[in-house]
Amino acid sequence: MRPVAVVGIGKTAFGAFPDRTLRSLAVEAGEKCMTDAGVSPSQIEAFYLGNFAGPAFVGQNHLAPYIAGSLGLTGVPCTRFEAACASGGSAFFHAVSSVAAGLNDIVLVAGVEKMTSQTTPKVTEILAGAGDMAGEGRAGATFPALFAMIARRHMHQYGTTREHLAAVAVKNHANGAKNPLAHMRKVITMEQALAGKMISEPLTVFDCSLISDGAAAVIIVPLERASEFTDLPVRILGIAQTSDYVALDAKADITTFWAVHEAAEKAYKMAHVSARDIEFAEVHDCFTIAEIIATEDLGFVKKGEGGWYALEGRTCLRAERPINASGGLKAKGHPVGATGVGQICDVALQIRGGAGELQLDRHSLGLAQNLGGSGATAVVTVMGGI
Amino acid sequence: MRPVAVVGIGKTAFGAFPDRTLRSLAVEAGEKCMTDAGVSPSQIEAFYLGNFAGPAFVGQNHLAPYIAGSLGLTGVPCTRFEAACASGGSAFFHAVSSVAAGLNDIVLVAGVEKMTSQTTPKVTEILAGAGDMAGEGRAGATFPALFAMIARRHMHQYGTTREHLAAVAVKNHANGAKNPLAHMRKVITMEQALAGKMISEPLTVFDCSLISDGAAAVIIVPLERASEFTDLPVRILGIAQTSDYVALDAKADITTFWAVHEAAEKAYKMAHVSARDIEFAEVHDCFTIAEIIATEDLGFVKKGEGGWYALEGRTCLRAERPINASGGLKAKGHPVGATGVGQICDVALQIRGGAGELQLDRHSLGLAQNLGGSGATAVVTVMGGI
Repeated sequence: MRPVAVVGIGKTAFGAFPDRTLRSLAVEAGEKCMTDAGVSPSQIEAFYLGNFAGPAFVGQNHLAPYIAGSLGLTGVPCTRFEAACASGGSAFFHAVSSVAAGLNDIVLVAGVEKMTSQTTPKVTEILAGAGDMAGEGRAGATFPALFAMIARRHMHQYGTTREHLAAVAVKNHANGAKNPLAHMRKVITMEQALAGKMISEPLTVFDCSLISDGAAAVIIVPLERASEFTDLPVRILGIAQTSDYVALDAKADITTFWAVHEAAEKAYKMAHVSARDIEFAEVHDCFTIAEIIATEDLGFVKKGEGGWYALEGRTCLRAERPINASGGLKAKGHPVGATGVGQICDVALQIRGGAGELQLDRHSLGLAQNLGGSGATAVVTVMGGI
Repeated sequence: MRPVAVVGIGKTAFGAFPDRTLRSLAVEAGEKCMTDAGVSPSQIEAFYLGNFAGPAFVGQNHLAPYIAGSLGLTGVPCTRFEAACASGGSAFFHAVSSVAAGLNDIVLVAGVEKMTSQTTPKVTEILAGAGDMAGEGRAGATFPALFAMIARRHMHQYGTTREHLAAVAVKNHANGAKNPLAHMRKVITMEQALAGKMISEPLTVFDCSLISDGAAAVIIVPLERASEFTDLPVRILGIAQTSDYVALDAKADITTFWAVHEAAEKAYKMAHVSARDIEFAEVHDCFTIAEIIATEDLGFVKKGEGGWYALEGRTCLRAERPINASGGLKAKGHPVGATGVGQICDVALQIRGGAGELQLDRHSLGLAQNLGGSGATAVVTVMGGI
């Protein structure tokens, strides 16, 4: 396998954009990314698109060639990947694999979602399709309900508290406030987080990520060709996609995302690093409890200690291991199909040293973790400077 | 790149199965296929799923791990590919590429769709999402309307007639009547075909493929390992996926599917064969005009001669180059996401010599052509015996 590098990144702002179409968002991210890498459409050999539910959100399917055509890309494989909230991560995983294996040299990966044209109840219904509709869905369990059950069990098993959850929200809001592309740029206090409107006990509105529109894109090439495109290549050191059962009741323990643990083990092994080497990470905080569990499953702390890790401030911007310096899904926003690719952009931006006010002190080895549904798909990527 | 072989195939019947779920169909095909190859779930290293619109048809998204869990597959990459009616072909293309490149050894590819739980108007609306909804869709152009425009232009440009179209229908019905897994096992006459209820002028009900439920699956491995699984491996000699604009009005000439032509050129080159070497083919006859155009774009006849080729009976079961011996999408059925993988099963079955009453005289080099939307995605595969 050949080493692979990210040589271009591009993101739209994440937010609610009633005047923008899904296609215009994806095209903006793709064009920014091609400009960043100095690549023209005719050089691109394949297009990998992550999108969760374009057909349901905006009534358009067959999205890969639909977007590719507007980017000036025809005649190459253009493919949409759907893996719930890990759709972007899955597209990226397959793209990286194809370059590593020598199938392609210059590949464009994008993720996009346009959610805010639907009402919140309708969005909630569409998102529920990432769970087990024949079981959980029929019982009325939306995603806030599923993650509330996970949170309750984590509290029961490990003594995690609402303050632990709120600490994640406070931190991510603080980071997001400094991110010019974030959906919600608003600092909140612990008191505000704890007093938030209850959505699904114990999760308040501040424990839930946002419903957003947005797109992100990256260009990857074999490392040996990276210097043709950039002075700041970012190397993909390890990557893995794994899966688990969709239904929560099929899992042995709902306080852990086994697929994340497996993907992390594989990615660390490929990168020849261990969890303790990772300096910073963008993790999938679709709910605050998901960030707490991610820090455990990724091996940053022991099982059950994720809540304290957050509460003690050890994952803050200037602390020992910053988590979600971008603001995370909580504050940056969560346009579902874009999220996994956006995380790659955010980690690459840190490694390149271009994160402005959010630039971390240690930024040579970062990780992105993208989760699909309630853990049935996981993608973990370890990235570093050259 | 390593040579790749199909070592197991499995299909459900295609039809209207009100008592079957999408998952049960996919599991049936997957299990048949694993039995055929003598492979257990624990041996499978990745799962590639083609599905067009499960979320819209049955309200379930995140389908790859959803189905994989029921097949006993967890901990491996499980990914859904969506490329409209070429979803199955796209999943197969990426799976073959991964084995060829050495990323995986034993891979399960499946395609599935469950369409008949929706009304025909609703199915038509969902299928329209594979076209350009902002343009064609807003103008009320359903897929029968788009292909009617294509047919009209083909008639105008090349003198193709309704008899040419009907000849395709008569042939495919005749073949389908002999296929135990076909949705519609009913012979029709030329008179019946011409007198069919008009759907979108000049296309009658007999020019349109069926709305079906069904699933298909294959197992692929590196050729060097094929003998561990079967005495009848089928080799993938060439394969390509290409793309074009989604909207018809963006295309220079709507009487040709440029992406099919490009994919065929690439697949032939990879296989070191030319169009004239292909002994038989399963092509994407979503409408009869699409089969006529496919025979042209694949290079079996010159541009504009596809109608006469069909009318003269040269693509019939015992003729020089049988097309759609299985009955095609017209008679076998068209469960959208399953179609591309089903074609691979049908071509492999012929090459293995197991097609029963439909067994062709010459069956050592076959082709499968899968089309997405009105030509924005194309996958062409050339297969042969060892």
